[in-house]
Order: sequence, then C-alpha cells, then structure tokens
Amino acid sequence: MESNRNNDPSISGGCSVPSKVRRRSNSEASEVNVGGLKIGPNGVVVIAGPCAVESSEQLRETAYAVKISGGLILRGGAFKPRSSPYNFQGLGSEGIKLLKEISLETGLPFVTEVMDTRHVEFVSEYADMLQVGSRNMQNFVLLKEVGMQKKPVLLKRGMMATIEEFLLAAEYILSQGNDQVVLCERGIRTFETTTRNTLDLSAVPMLKHLSHLPVIVDPSHGTGLRWMVPTMAKAAIAAGADGLIMEVHYNPEEALCDGHQSINPEEFSALMTDLDKIARAVGRKLAKPEPSLI
Amino acid sequence: MESNRNNDPSISGGCSVPSKVRRRSNSEASEVNVGGLKIGPNGVVVIAGPCAVESSEQLRETAYAVKISGGLILRGGAFKPRSSPYNFQGLGSEGIKLLKEISLETGLPFVTEVMDTRHVEFVSEYADMLQVGSRNMQNFVLLKEVGMQKKPVLLKRGMMATIEEFLLAAEYILSQGNDQVVLCERGIRTFETTTRNTLDLSAVPMLKHLSHLPVIVDPSHGTGLRWMVPTMAKAAIAAGADGLIMEVHYNPEEALCDGHQSINPEEFSALMTDLDKIARAVGRKLAKPEPSLI
Amino acid sequence: MESNRNNDPSISGGCSVPSKVRRRSNSEASEVNVGGLKIGPNGVVVIAGPCAVESSEQLRETAYAVKISGGLILRGGAFKPRSSPYNFQGLGSEGIKLLKEISLETGLPFVTEVMDTRHVEFVSEYADMLQVGSRNMQNFVLLKEVGMQKKPVLLKRGMMATIEEFLLAAEYILSQGNDQVVLCERGIRTFETTTRNTLDLSAVPMLKHLSHLPVIVDPSHGTGLRWMVPTMAKAAIAAGADGLIMEVHYNPEEALCDGHQSINPEEFSALMTDLDKIARAVGRKLAKPEPSLI
Amino acid sequence: MESNRNNDPSISGGCSVPSKVRRRSNSEASEVNVGGLKIGPNGVVVIAGPCAVESSEQLRETAYAVKISGGLILRGGAFKPRSSPYNFQGLGSEGIKLLKEISLETGLPFVTEVMDTRHVEFVSEYADMLQVGSRNMQNFVLLKEVGMQKKPVLLKRGMMATIEEFLLAAEYILSQGNDQVVLCERGIRTFETTTRNTLDLSAVPMLKHLSHLPVIVDPSHGTGLRWMVPTMAKAAIAAGADGLIMEVHYNPEEALCDGHQSINPEEFSALMTDLDKIARAVGRKLAKPEPSLI
Repeated sequence: MESNRNNDPSISGGCSVPSKVRRRSNSEASEVNVGGLKIGPNGVVVIAGPCAVESSEQLRETAYAVKISGGLILRGGAFKPRSSPYNFQGLGSEGIKLLKEISLETGLPFVTEVMDTRHVEFVSEYADMLQVGSRNMQNFVLLKEVGMQKKPVLLKRGMMATIEEFLLAAEYILSQGNDQVVLCERGIRTFETTTRNTLDLSAVPMLKHLSHLPVIVDPSHGTGLRWMVPTMAKAAIAAGADGLIMEVHYNPEEALCDGHQSINPEEFSALMTDLDKIARAVGRKLAKPEPSLI
Repeated sequence: MESNRNNDPSISGGCSVPSKVRRRSNSEASEVNVGGLKIGPNGVVVIAGPCAVESSEQLRETAYAVKISGGLILRGGAFKPRSSPYNFQGLGSEGIKLLKEISLETGLPFVTEVMDTRHVEFVSEYADMLQVGSRNMQNFVLLKEVGMQKKPVLLKRGMMATIEEFLLAAEYILSQGNDQVVLCERGIRTFETTTRNTLDLSAVPMLKHLSHLPVIVDPSHGTGLRWMVPTMAKAAIAAGADGLIMEVHYNPEEALCDGHQSINPEEFSALMTDLDKIARAVGRKLAKPEPSLI
Repeated sequence: MESNRNNDPSISGGCSVPSKVRRRSNSEASEVNVGGLKIGPNGVVVIAGPCAVESSEQLRETAYAVKISGGLILRGGAFKPRSSPYNFQGLGSEGIKLLKEISLETGLPFVTEVMDTRHVEFVSEYADMLQVGSRNMQNFVLLKEVGMQKKPVLLKRGMMATIEEFLLAAEYILSQGNDQVVLCERGIRTFETTTRNTLDLSAVPMLKHLSHLPVIVDPSHGTGLRWMVPTMAKAAIAAGADGLIMEVHYNPEEALCDGHQSINPEEFSALMTDLDKIARAVGRKLAKPEPSLI
Repeated sequence: MESNRNNDPSISGGCSVPSKVRRRSNSEASEVNVGGLKIGPNGVVVIAGPCAVESSEQLRETAYAVKISGGLILRGGAFKPRSSPYNFQGLGSEGIKLLKEISLETGLPFVTEVMDTRHVEFVSEYADMLQVGSRNMQNFVLLKEVGMQKKPVLLKRGMMATIEEFLLAAEYILSQGNDQVVLCERGIRTFETTTRNTLDLSAVPMLKHLSHLPVIVDPSHGTGLRWMVPTMAKAAIAAGADGLIMEVHYNPEEALCDGHQSINPEEFSALMTDLDKIARAVGRKLAKPEPSLI
C-alpha cells in the first residue's frame, strides 16, 4: 500500500496530496508542540473550554473544570465569526488578555481563533496556538500570515471542503515555513438537518493516511447537539483521532454562544473517564500533562 | 429530555417521528429475532459474507471463515442492484438456494436482498431476514410487501435519505404489521469523493434516540475502501451501533462485485478481536451464538 | 468536440456514457412518440395536470384548462409514492381508468407513474406514456419491466443521482429493447432549504450533449414553490429543454397532494404565452397539437 | 404574498431575512451605481474580462473585445484566491494598476477582487467596484472593511452558503453603512461532478423575492465548462438575473487561470446577440453604455 497511496483510487479516491503535508511512509507522523504539550501519535489530547470568552469568572471556572478532569489545552474565542452582524462578536483583544491570564493561572496552554491578518501578530504574542476557523479555511492571506508565525496552528476543515482542499489549505501554512499544523475535522454540510453538520469521521483515517499531520475532531460543532457530543467524541477516538476539541461551559443554558452544543463540567468529567477506556481499546491512552506543567 | 424528544430542535433538529417506530421512553429498545439470534440492546451482532453469491465453494469457504471468527449471521446477494445493466446481476433464485444450503450447513441464519415485489414470497421461504437496499428505501410497494411477511427486515438508509424519511420508510413496514425491523446506516452521498460515501455515524445515536428499533452500520459500503473498513467498524461500535454488516470475501481481488471494499478472512478475524475490546469499552460485548445454534 | 465528448474532463467532467443512450454526433437527437405527439429536437412540448387524480370533475376541469392553453399531454398520478404511509396514496387502478376516460374526451395523451412491476402491464394498456419516478430511478427491476413494454417512458432523475447514474438507468430501459425514453430533470437534493430541491438546469445541456434522448424539466418538484414555477419554467426552456412537465390544479389550495407547488389554470395560461416567447428567443417554438388530435 | 414573504414556508422555505437587505414590497428594487453604470431592475448589465490580469496586452485586447460586443464593466483578478499555494497567485498591486490604465483607456469601469483587509483601502482608490469572492463570503472582517468604503461591492455566494447565510453576509456590509451591494450566484457544491459547481438559478428569483438588492449570475464558475457558458447565461437572464459576470480571454487555451471556462471574443460577441433576445423575451433588454461613457 506504501508506494501508491496517493494515486490509486481504490485507496484514496484519487486524491492528490501536496508535497509538504504528504505522508511518505506508514510510520511517518508529526508531533505538534503546544506550549510544551505534544499532539501527535502518542497520547490523545483533549482541548476544551467555552465557545466564547464572556467574563473572567466564566473563563476561570470553566478552565479549572477542564483542568481537573484532565483537559490539557484551553480553548476560548475572543474574535468570533458569527453568521449575523447582530450576534455577539466576542470580547476582542480584551478576551485574548483574559485567556492569557487564566492560562497562566491554570497552567493550561490556550488556543484561540484569529480572523484578521492585522491581528495575527498581536494574538501570536499571547496565544500558544492559533486557530483558523472553518469559514476561513480558504482565506489564503490568513493562511500565509499564520504560516509566517512561530506558533502552532489548528486548522479547521471548511464545512464544504474536500479532503484535497483541506490538505492544500494546510500546505499554504507549511509552504511559509510553519510545519506545526494540526488538522481538525468539525463536520461537513450535507442535506441532513437533524444535526448541525454531518461529522465525517472517515476523514480521520483518510487524513492520517495521506498526511503526517496530527488530526483531531470537534464533536461540538460536528453535531451541534449537547447530548450527542459524548457519543461522537468516543467514536472519534475509535476512528483514530489524535485529540478532541470540545465546548465546555459552566452554565450552558446561559452561554452567549453555542450553549446548545456545550457540555457542562460534570458531563465533561464523566466523558473523560469514558474516553480513556476507548483510547485504551485502540491501543492508546489519554495524554497526561507534562510534569512541569502541573 | 424524555417528554420533548420529538419536537425540540435543540435535541433532534425538529425531526418528526411517525408513531410506530417512535421511541417513547429512554429505556424502550426493541429486539429483532433473526433465526433465533437477537439484534438489539444487548450483545453487538456481526453480520458478514460476500457482496454476491458467486459459487458454492466461494460461499462455503467465506461462511465458515465468518463463523469461526464469531460472525453470527451470513449475508450474501443473489439479486443484485447494479448501476449498470452490463454488470453481474447475481445468481438469482439459484443464489438463494445456495445461501439456504450453506446456512443449514454452518448453522448461520442468513440475510439477503429482495428487489422485486414478485420475489418477496419466494425469498421469504428461504431467508431468515429480508434486506431492502439503499436504492429501494423509498420503493413503497416493496416496503409494504415485506411488511406483510413474517420475516425480519434489514432496512438500509437511502444514500440521499434524511433521518425523517428513513424512519417513515420503516413505518411503512411496521404499518403493515411487521415490527421486526433493523435500521442500517450505510453512508450518505456528499460532495466528498475520497470515500465512496460519507458514513454518517451521528445517525446511530440520533436513530436510537428517536426510535426503539435496533441500528446497525455497514462500513463496507459506507467507505468503499477495504483498508478503512476496520477503523470505521470500531468507530461505529463506539457510536453505539447494535451491530455491523460487512463484506467478507475469501479472495477480494477476484470478487465479482465490490472486491475493493471487501476484507478477507484474516482481516475479519483480527477485526473481531478489536471489536470486542471497543464493545467492552462502551459497556457492551460482542454477541455469542445461541448454544442451540453451535 | 465530436470525438472526445465522452472522456475529456474539460468537456463532460469525465462522465462515462453507456452505449445505447450515448450521442454519437452533434446532430443526433431522438424523437419520442407519445400518442402521436413527438418530444424531441423540434417544438417544445408542455405536459401538465394535477399531482394526483382526485375525482372525475377535478381531472376533467384541469385537463380542459391544460388543453385550452396549449398543453399537449396530460399528467396525473394514480399510484402515488408518498414519504409517509399515512398520506393519500392515490386512487390506484380507478385513477388510471379516469385518466383514460378524460384523455379520450379531451384528445390529450396521458402519462402516469407506475411503481410496481406487477402493475406495469395493466398501466401500459391504458397510458400513452409510463413514468418512472425519482424514488424509483434505481429500481432496476422496474426499469427492466418498462423496458419490455411498447410504451414510451418518462424517466425522472433521482434526487441524488449523478448524470452518469441517470444515463445508466436509461440504459437499463434501452437494453431491454425500448428506446422511447425521455429524461426529466426534477431537482436534486442539496443543503439549500428555501426550495424543496435545487433545480439543476445545467443538467439539460449536459444530458443533451452526452445523449441523444430528449430532455424535459419539472419546475414544480424542482422548486416546490408555486410562485417560482413560471420563472424556472422559462429558464428551463432557455437552457434548451425539449419540454416541461408541470403540476396544474384547478384549485391548488384544496389539492390532496402538492398544492403548494401547483399553479392554477390562469397562471398556466399566462405562462404558456411567456414560454412561447422564450422558445422563439432560442430559435424554437412551443409544439402545436397534431391536426388529427384537435 | 406581500405581508408574509419572510415567514411562510410555502413561500420562502422559512428563510429569515435580516433588516437592511430585506425587500419590503414587491416594487422595491435597489440600483447600484458602478462608475456611472446602474445595475438593477432595468437593463441587464454584462460584466466580462479575464480570470486573471496577465499582461498589458492580454488585458487591453480582451477589454476592447468586451467593449465592442456590449460588455459594460471590465472584470479581472489581480489578487487571486487559488486552492494551491503553487498556482499563479496574480500580479497583485501591479495588476490593479494595469486594470486602472485599461479602464481609463476603454472607458469601462472595472471590478476586481480584494482578499486582504490590508488591501481594501488601496484597491478602493483604483477600482470602481470591489469583489468579495466565494471563499471569503463569510470572512466577516473583510465584509466589515468593504462595508466602510464608498465603493460598490460585488458579493459572491459561498459555494456552501445557504440563501439565508448569503443575505446575512450582505447585511454585514450594509450594517457598516454601505448599501451599494450586488449579489452574485456562482454555483454551489453538490454531489454532481460533471460540472465544476451546480449553478443554482432558483437562487435568482428567491434572492430577488427576499431582498431589494440586484442579483447577477456567474455562468463561468457556475459550470466550469466553456461550451456550457452561453446556454447557462441565457437561462440566467430568463430566470430574472439583473446581470452576468463572465470570463472572457482572448486566447483561452493559453490562459494562466481558468482557461477551461473562459470563452473567446467571438463566442462572447455571438452570445451578446442571443442574450438580448432572451432579455426582450422576459420584458427587459441589455443595458447600453451611458452616453457620457462612450
């Protein structure tokens, strides 16, 4: 299977893979370093936190809940891409600073989305990892800009992006010199409407087959349904994901954003126990914090 | 969550569920009896066999391989729905008789597809379970006809069917008096082309949430890629599937149909060991044969 | 463009076309004879009538309205494929007989859907054209059965069928000896929800480019919106359609089926005038009835 | 139909329309002024030019060909969004200056894409209209930035965007004070692969029904097939489009970008004659240049 992985349609549907993201042997697998934590072929890393940073209290409570249950990286949005101009747009630079404060307090590195090329440098000063969101997966100027930073990048698949386009978007970042990229499947758009998106878990083995980059899954956006997040998180690990990113809120009913798909700290805690069982059933385990970070 | 499972969009996307397939409480879960074997909330049942019955030897060898590794039900196509009129169309009634013969020899009940209302009675005399395929999910006359039989039905989701349409198709069968229906997710059609279909694993928790009927997954058609079948089979169990149906061929390279997505007996055997681990990680286990059937 | 129309991706996206439906030169175009009327490269033919036959009065009033405004073929459903078993399923054989009666009265040939292989012979005795509906486009036993009749067939594209699959479905009919097939684009399923389906008008030039068979369009199912039917009917003619099939009801608000997408006789009459203008703008005109049929 | 156009699912599929783009009466229709030319409810405006500016000679020859045949606005890309980082990325600011030069020479106003918030001010100094491309339809920071300019904006529908999301994207621009927005349907992504995208012409009447903004169509990207562009251009006018934007290249075989979907000057000239006929058949005509611009 080795030699022809990239052009035999019976193996990868004829997908053409650009050179820097391409995996060249079955054993090749990159590790991405996020503030000392490694995302890659070993332990499964869980990233969690609120959709949007709302306040110091909200972020702190949620972050500690994440940490106590074994989450290793904090997520939180400060610049929010919202379909409507009249929705809450995030706290902006103030949110970035809050994330940094709580990150230092808890010892959890953090990832946050950057939407504007003009903000990339500023956000890079604070964040441990830059997220490029679904809607910006083909914002090529943004991809180039984060490709010029020294910070790892979490690249989310566009909701209607093919695997090939997703890998080309990652190639934009690597082509600028930044090879610290984590790919994230977060659901694609189909005709089905009971779920917000259709989580394409077959993208996990396919991406890992074609590329050496780590692959994680976002079951929160992938389903849009709070009750379904734990089930699909488990399925993602079974499908071989190197990690998960999930929305956790200390009070989902009151969240300013995406409350309907956020789980609360108790649900998160129970889920982490289950995830470790699944990880072990596929020969892995949940990653533990670096001793120096505890 | 109990009372409003069927009309709160934050729970099921506003899906309307017809009365006979509807699940009325979190504990309601039907069991379907296939030749003495039960598909339902307990052990996870694996159905396996060739895409198409090709010969007595092919079917016998594959069937014993399935049985030895723990497969409990034999699958095999005699009437084949093929996109092109020039492709192999199956052995027809001769294939049905071969299936019966090997079924009696091995003690494995068998499921086979029926495509024509005029064949339903004949196939019902031989088969332990009738399959209605994807392309016939909205063949309403066929649904009514199998609904009038005393045999359990394996109903595959149409590749373009919403969850709501899928449940309505099942309702057609139940409305005729036959409540022995198993739902099967087998991949939907999306824009993605690296896989034959996009396996929609979120359909598993959604269907089980909305309906009391058992839900199984077909990772062979769902991916179309032999190397990906084991991974997605594991993910399906983690997502809560009550069973799997997979294409196994004793010599996939020479198969007359779907060889590119069939695994061989060795791969099947290795997979069964892995599946039991995943099943246990979600609090279940692989179903064992009824003592009387060994 | 002649020699490579079927394998140059810059021309037809790499679509492979089976032999009997394949168009071999730019001038090849079949004509299909429906009760003396010809659907093909000359005049644009309009088929119209109610979604379902409801009563003698309803059918008669609507049929005369269709005839008076220039509709040449009557449509009407007697066996109705309905998503839910609890919806009106049509009048069955009684509806077929009513269609025949009104057809003789008005002199309009009629087309009606057949869903069950066991009904094909019966319906063929009465109808001038057999319709195979969207949901049965890959009901291969039905395709073979209508392929063995001497009646022309109106084959509707499946709502998630590729152009290639659509042509293969037509090939099933031709391979049985019946070359009187008209292809009908009726909207495909996409993520968009403001319209019932997404009418794929580019299918019209593509199908005519690849195949010699006539191509018509169904703007009623294609949009699902009564107010949008006239606009899309005009666009279909501009795209090169050889005809249209539309739902007309003498009282859409009271229709037992698809009233929301049926236009009334006044709207139909106004539309026919507009359609002739469009047809002339693309070098064609609306077909007139055969003198012997008036 | 007036009062409930925005909430009756039988009319608009339940689409919710934001306040500034919403059409409040059947007679409301905005006009957008592009360098003195008006896009709106009157004459149909044709925008044409090369995919990418390649050289002074290429742009000049193509621009004169466009003008001679009745094209009123010149299009040309200087900053090109390309799926692969290794494809030609455009001439950048040099391309913008060439566009200005040829625009002054020919008297054709020009539209060009802007991708980076940092370039918006610069491009606004030169261009008569700013294009926000498909891939940036939900690049909300870019939408806000062009919303703060005094230049009209051509907003292309994202290939995965619903009608509702498209209107919300336009609302972002209007909410910043810029109401000079033209909506452009350019094909959506579906499962169909014979065409590059599926041109959704029903979006034209739907957008015009829901919003007062002008709507144009891009048959070049919508089909990806040079031979199909004229047919779908005609269908777009019949569907009620207020204009077209097309790729014309004086030598498509040698184009650095999108040659397979570009028509040549002779094809463009023949098409313009046909388009006028279609426009007249729906009660409109092709817009003529302002006398002062000739």
